[in-house]
Amino acid sequence: MSLEALLARIEPVDDAAGRAAQAALDAKTKPRGSLGELEALAVRVAAIRGTASPGPLRSAVVVAAGDHGYAARGVSAYPQEVTGQMLANFAAGGAAINVLARQADARLVVVDAGVLHPVEHPAIRPLRLGAGTADATEGPATTRERALAGIAAGADLAAELLGEAIGVVAVGDMGIGNTTAASALCAALLPAEPEAVCGRGTGIDEEGLARKVDVVRRALAANDVVDPVGALAALGGHEIAFLVGVCLGAAAEQAVVLLDGFVTGAAALVAAQLAPDAAGRMIASHRSPEPGHALVLADLGLRPLLDLGLRLGEGSGAALALPLLDASLAVLADMATFEAAGVTDAGR
Amino acid sequence: MSLEALLARIEPVDDAAGRAAQAALDAKTKPRGSLGELEALAVRVAAIRGTASPGPLRSAVVVAAGDHGYAARGVSAYPQEVTGQMLANFAAGGAAINVLARQADARLVVVDAGVLHPVEHPAIRPLRLGAGTADATEGPATTRERALAGIAAGADLAAELLGEAIGVVAVGDMGIGNTTAASALCAALLPAEPEAVCGRGTGIDEEGLARKVDVVRRALAANDVVDPVGALAALGGHEIAFLVGVCLGAAAEQAVVLLDGFVTGAAALVAAQLAPDAAGRMIASHRSPEPGHALVLADLGLRPLLDLGLRLGEGSGAALALPLLDASLAVLADMATFEAAGVTDAGR
Repeated sequence: MSLEALLARIEPVDDAAGRAAQAALDAKTKPRGSLGELEALAVRVAAIRGTASPGPLRSAVVVAAGDHGYAARGVSAYPQEVTGQMLANFAAGGAAINVLARQADARLVVVDAGVLHPVEHPAIRPLRLGAGTADATEGPATTRERALAGIAAGADLAAELLGEAIGVVAVGDMGIGNTTAASALCAALLPAEPEAVCGRGTGIDEEGLARKVDVVRRALAANDVVDPVGALAALGGHEIAFLVGVCLGAAAEQAVVLLDGFVTGAAALVAAQLAPDAAGRMIASHRSPEPGHALVLADLGLRPLLDLGLRLGEGSGAALALPLLDASLAVLADMATFEAAGVTDAGR
Repeated sequence: MSLEALLARIEPVDDAAGRAAQAALDAKTKPRGSLGELEALAVRVAAIRGTASPGPLRSAVVVAAGDHGYAARGVSAYPQEVTGQMLANFAAGGAAINVLARQADARLVVVDAGVLHPVEHPAIRPLRLGAGTADATEGPATTRERALAGIAAGADLAAELLGEAIGVVAVGDMGIGNTTAASALCAALLPAEPEAVCGRGTGIDEEGLARKVDVVRRALAANDVVDPVGALAALGGHEIAFLVGVCLGAAAEQAVVLLDGFVTGAAALVAAQLAPDAAGRMIASHRSPEPGHALVLADLGLRPLLDLGLRLGEGSGAALALPLLDASLAVLADMATFEAAGVTDAGR
């Protein structure tokens, strides 16, 4: 499917279904609105799914990994080899997201969107748009063609998952240097100053942060960005391109798109600039300490469910928010009404 | 067991076990501290349980219901009959906490600590310290003997649950008028001005809030409070007395005490004033919009996991936080170490 055809399939959410879900919640045996954000969550899911009774939903966590030319510029506390090592760790089941996806009863799908040192394993889907990206401070990180191929592959995976009756697609990322790519994308697309978006990622020091801001500034200067796909190719990463496609594909299929932290937020920003109605189909799982994340959430109009100081990525925050989403739908589906339970409804 | 004997069994948490759990987390394949509050949660549970490997823990939600003389003073948006009706709803499985406890795979125990209109049902444990409390604006809400009996019964239930290998005891409350009782207790024990602790409960208007502040002020004036148990008897409620006992009993048995909102917070405040080491064994699940709740949490030194605008009670916030607790222990137990996974540990 062409990008244009994909974007054309993304529609506004069904506000009537959301209102019907709120009316159903208001009839349940609890004071109106007393479950706060949990009610708002159920209402959003109803609007996204286009039904007042979205029922329980099966979920998947899609983690995309990629390497980044930025890594050569000393923007991470970890060496680049860790991306491939973590891919092997995902395959072996020992990473945080393996544990957290299992806890949340979510299917885990791991995609190699383009790491330097690939891992051959049945649990890793090879996409391999390239062996890492080029150093964006000296020109485009990757080509427009590869970015578009990443988007198409992500949309295909979303369609595959929806075909398996999965209604919630959570997204996650892995890639040494990828908060620099996300920072550059946000700086270009929000737009914002590099200082306003760059943070310490997984743990660089003050000096490293200054280097990161400088790298983002140079990447912006070295690339002429004309549109969101151009920004994605010039400044982003292969795993981010793939995640843009997952967001768009899931939105086109009326799935709930559950975001993780800053890197998936950058992918969501690209997706929303391509298809503004996609933002209404996204739910923010947590607030990342990365300063750019708050700007992205504000731009997308999203309020995160959790604020636990998570800065791991991998979809870990999204997996932790999944039980809240499940609980909100269980409340909507399973609680008794005032009438059925014979409880006086004074809050009418 | 006498109250003195119960209090004597509550010991400080095991900080060495907590430090050992943090060291174990630091060896896992993730940047140090990158799971934020989730790591702090696992460390707290390890310290409470006295082991660096607390493993998965079974959990129970204990909901205590009681009626309040305060209700006659127009402090609630709901009529008093709703307490008994909700007890029947708990028995039938239709209330929010039925749904949320099931979602969290927690055992639900419902106790009638003293409602006006009892419900006979195998799912409701009758304690019935009284048919509601007296109006505390005209003298003690209940007697010291009944408050002590409530504490003893709560501690007995905690011991029973721990005997069934339950490691996490979440607490919840139901009772029309009980945020007024909680406000009066907090005003007396923190201490604080009635205006600083009273909020809108499940939804009273501005006029109702002014009445509530006045009722708390009059209850404080009508009763001579000399100690925490005296405050509990004079100003509290039967379900709050029972919850104080659950908190103390669970703390004595080295269980994790998972608090809900403002009413369970008031019970926790009484428990911590009786046994200061009990506070270290408590975890705050969520931040209630009731203004007194923030004061209680600050006094207990607790930081809540969730901030979702929940104002239902019933243990609903505690049940929603349970999956985070489970996830924190799964990360501690199941993630691979850098060494085992062959991942370069640059964060050392």
